[in-house]
Amino acid sequence: MDTIVICSGGLDSVSLAHRVAGEGRLLSLLSFDYGQRHVKEVEFAALCAQRLGVAHKVLDIRAIGEGLSGSALTDDIDVPDGHYEEASMQLTVVPNRNAIMLSIAFGMAVAVRAKRVAAAVHGGDHFIYPDCRPGFIHAFQVMQNHALEGYADVTLYVPYVEGSKADIVVDGARNGTPFEQTWSCYKGGAVHCGRCGTCVERREAFDLAGIKDPTDYADDTFWHEAIAGGREG
Amino acid sequence: MDTIVICSGGLDSVSLAHRVAGEGRLLSLLSFDYGQRHVKEVEFAALCAQRLGVAHKVLDIRAIGEGLSGSALTDDIDVPDGHYEEASMQLTVVPNRNAIMLSIAFGMAVAVRAKRVAAAVHGGDHFIYPDCRPGFIHAFQVMQNHALEGYADVTLYVPYVEGSKADIVVDGARNGTPFEQTWSCYKGGAVHCGRCGTCVERREAFDLAGIKDPTDYADDTFWHEAIAGGREG
Repeated sequence: MDTIVICSGGLDSVSLAHRVAGEGRLLSLLSFDYGQRHVKEVEFAALCAQRLGVAHKVLDIRAIGEGLSGSALTDDIDVPDGHYEEASMQLTVVPNRNAIMLSIAFGMAVAVRAKRVAAAVHGGDHFIYPDCRPGFIHAFQVMQNHALEGYADVTLYVPYVEGSKADIVVDGARNGTPFEQTWSCYKGGAVHCGRCGTCVERREAFDLAGIKDPTDYADDTFWHEAIAGGREG
Repeated sequence: MDTIVICSGGLDSVSLAHRVAGEGRLLSLLSFDYGQRHVKEVEFAALCAQRLGVAHKVLDIRAIGEGLSGSALTDDIDVPDGHYEEASMQLTVVPNRNAIMLSIAFGMAVAVRAKRVAAAVHGGDHFIYPDCRPGFIHAFQVMQNHALEGYADVTLYVPYVEGSKADIVVDGARNGTPFEQTWSCYKGGAVHCGRCGTCVERREAFDLAGIKDPTDYADDTFWHEAIAGGREG
């Protein structure tokens, strides 16, 4: 039990928590409240921790989110509908978010003597998010090796970094992840909207994985028009 | 005016702010409140910003400090007296502090379109703090280049990284830094205690620089017994 999993409560990071628990190495879950709209996610992270019998720490970094304005996730910009595309995805980036969250998680790992920090970055985000690419992940580890030299050895564990979101669905299913207890929607309603970028991406991942999507979507056909229709047409 | 200076209000970072102002590139000062005891420092950072006519942002990251317990700066451990030595300095380290603060500063630089983040790391800290060494600084820049690829170019500016604290005193004097308006003491009394690690280091730096120390110390002779006496004896 030596691994802290950064867990937003989304499909990817809850699947990762179940994977690490399956390895017998899950120490705790760490969530960040950075003023994002979909705080609902964090409730699913708490449920995940409860289910897996580990501690759950929520770090309030809203002051940082306020300092780093200009993002659709934290400001009063409309969340764009449809599949992730470059323009709309840039809106959802909090500047330097992964470097910030990973650095904090590494600090916590040192404090509690954990050996690994696990993060659910995946290949589907490479095109738009430079801080999800293998080059960043490698450089981050090198930076941390310097920062902690002589004090601690902490490894960044990113088993999905070369995979797709569909691969995560397959892995999550293999590890018994209850997908209905994960949250993706950027709009934070009672159920998943089915129309925002993450809902469309989620629905598509289940489709590509060939695994039944247990999610309740307010609009259950939009993804098909937006993605599958386009792909087949 | 394209440079954010990370400024604690201490001698090093206030000297750095005056240096960057002298270059005509000072955009703003950024301070972190991470629950350290010497919050008094931050008041001197505010004074510095006022004096140099720039904005001053204080980011409250106390929630992170609470998450990363185990440090003399934030916990109920006695601050050790005397010159910095390995054992006592380790107590004053917040795990991964520089990686965390620099990552946040880079995020802010992206948000406000600044081109440089300046930090007052110096050679006197290399022996104990791995996250002040040139190897860390280089690796951090490489990591950030990956993280921000295609979005922004931000450079980490660390003009003191190869210098000593005495070199900073010389540079600060050259740039008209009012040293009496900087704070070093870890104990946070009405005046500098003159006995803690940073007070001794501060007093010694002025001595080595051959510049009069305008600081009011509660104990003005301790440094000499602890350091100069030892050096001369």
